[in-house]
Amino acid sequence: MDETVAAVDIGGTKIAGALVDRRGRLTAPCRLPTRAAGDAGGVLAAVTGVLDRLAAGPGWAAVRAVGIGSAGPVDVAKGAVSPVNIPAWRDFPLVEAVQRHLEGLPGSGRPVVLTGDGPAMAAAEHWQGAARGFRNALCMVVSTGVGGGLVLDGRLYPGPSGNAGHIGHISVDLDGEPCPCGSRGCVEVLASGPAIARRALRQGWRPADPDRADAGAVAEAARAGDPVALAGFARAARALAAGIAATATLVELDVAVVGGGVAGAGEILFDPLREALHSYAVLPFVRQLELRPARLGTDAGLVGAAAAAAQALRLDGWS
Amino acid sequence: MDETVAAVDIGGTKIAGALVDRRGRLTAPCRLPTRAAGDAGGVLAAVTGVLDRLAAGPGWAAVRAVGIGSAGPVDVAKGAVSPVNIPAWRDFPLVEAVQRHLEGLPGSGRPVVLTGDGPAMAAAEHWQGAARGFRNALCMVVSTGVGGGLVLDGRLYPGPSGNAGHIGHISVDLDGEPCPCGSRGCVEVLASGPAIARRALRQGWRPADPDRADAGAVAEAARAGDPVALAGFARAARALAAGIAATATLVELDVAVVGGGVAGAGEILFDPLREALHSYAVLPFVRQLELRPARLGTDAGLVGAAAAAAQALRLDGWS
Repeated sequence: MDETVAAVDIGGTKIAGALVDRRGRLTAPCRLPTRAAGDAGGVLAAVTGVLDRLAAGPGWAAVRAVGIGSAGPVDVAKGAVSPVNIPAWRDFPLVEAVQRHLEGLPGSGRPVVLTGDGPAMAAAEHWQGAARGFRNALCMVVSTGVGGGLVLDGRLYPGPSGNAGHIGHISVDLDGEPCPCGSRGCVEVLASGPAIARRALRQGWRPADPDRADAGAVAEAARAGDPVALAGFARAARALAAGIAATATLVELDVAVVGGGVAGAGEILFDPLREALHSYAVLPFVRQLELRPARLGTDAGLVGAAAAAAQALRLDGWS
Repeated sequence: MDETVAAVDIGGTKIAGALVDRRGRLTAPCRLPTRAAGDAGGVLAAVTGVLDRLAAGPGWAAVRAVGIGSAGPVDVAKGAVSPVNIPAWRDFPLVEAVQRHLEGLPGSGRPVVLTGDGPAMAAAEHWQGAARGFRNALCMVVSTGVGGGLVLDGRLYPGPSGNAGHIGHISVDLDGEPCPCGSRGCVEVLASGPAIARRALRQGWRPADPDRADAGAVAEAARAGDPVALAGFARAARALAAGIAATATLVELDVAVVGGGVAGAGEILFDPLREALHSYAVLPFVRQLELRPARLGTDAGLVGAAAAAAQALRLDGWS
């Protein structure tokens, strides 16, 4: 049977699991609700529940390692997580808890590798998606928040605590709008889905369906030619471009991959983003940067958790 | 005789050389004017002149390699340089030219390693200065321009073309002042020495000596309590802080080292910089970042060119 990594992807609404093989294919997918409002043990129960389902299947014997991708911030050095949208987990010792649970399951001694969701997405896009074949990449998710991860010199670069590439919280507008993180003018506060909708509403855009005043609805209005909606995407695109250009200037990038719900707007986002990149990414070593939409969808978290684990453990035949 | 690296430091006004030993000590220092307004061959003649002086000394036999630090942009993959303030050199094949010149000097086969001046300064501060003992560092020079270099995971990270860490040209004010680089709101256009003086003058500051309207004079006025001068440094400090925090958020830093003429203002810069860092560097994995003044002075370019060459060539006993 083909060697696999058991992957778990922990988000604020669901906890997903699957076995991932050396070609990035998923088998035995399952998911449980996160119950983020509950206590720490309740959230952990969903994680162990997912592992139990994977362990009950015929593929479990071929599992070499367990890769966990988690919403951040994470602290991979300590094996702990503090996901913003799971308040019960603050510095929660997730790796230790998972290791302990694995002791009660068939097989033993499987290593557990924790990766933040931004780096996991980057690992997935580099392994199987839009960043494949590039040595230096920023991969980002633009959605309710803005996250990302870095590939440097051909390998995932998670940084010492596993949070490198966190482009959503760099300031591109030092006197700008306060960000819930405590800083100002962060990429996230200018370019996330809610930021796009908020700004459009402030500028006078009115959604066709009053119950759906989100970035998707702004994108539809933009596609129909609504100037306020178009300006809203242009503004988000400038913030993203300034952030991408800053990253390219600091670490040198070959490609920037953009995914997530807001990227689903397609050319409504990518056209102004490409144009804005020409304004901000101007130095000779920066301007050849490619821009690509992400290729993997919601499975990126699982694929990336497995890829990052395989890379960290240097498993044979996984790159 | 102790093994050395012959180091050459190429700037817009002078070309310096010295032999650097394994403990970072300089011997046989020499320098020639750059004659930046002249033709490409004239500038190269100053470089070869410096090498000739080093080769004429008794230490030349113990030279293992030649390390060249150059004002950027550089392209270390091609061995070429295009220093902004040496117009005659555009994509100038410096490494090849130096290699050819070395063939006519005693000894042979010495490798030549090219490093940008920002990364060279970072290599120097990490080896012998304020970043020593830290695994992840941004080292920057705030002077006529703003440059920098990165140490990641204990090693200099020059990036594929040798320009990584170029913090002077990341935008922290996406709608801000145009920068000569073509972008807007770059750290350099807000925080360089000329930017500080320009802003202070615009806000009504008048220098004691009309012929010295520079950042040093603004610093003196600030030290005497001039509120416009103090506000000028506070503004520059905010731009630097936003840039440093962005870098820490993207790659995770343990320390930021700031040197160069503007850093010579001491607490006039460092006090507001420390304060501004608390506003922008707020995420858990960023806020433990240390801020330190650079320790090496004008020799940093030579020490760093040698250190970077020794690291690239993995010379024994040089780390």
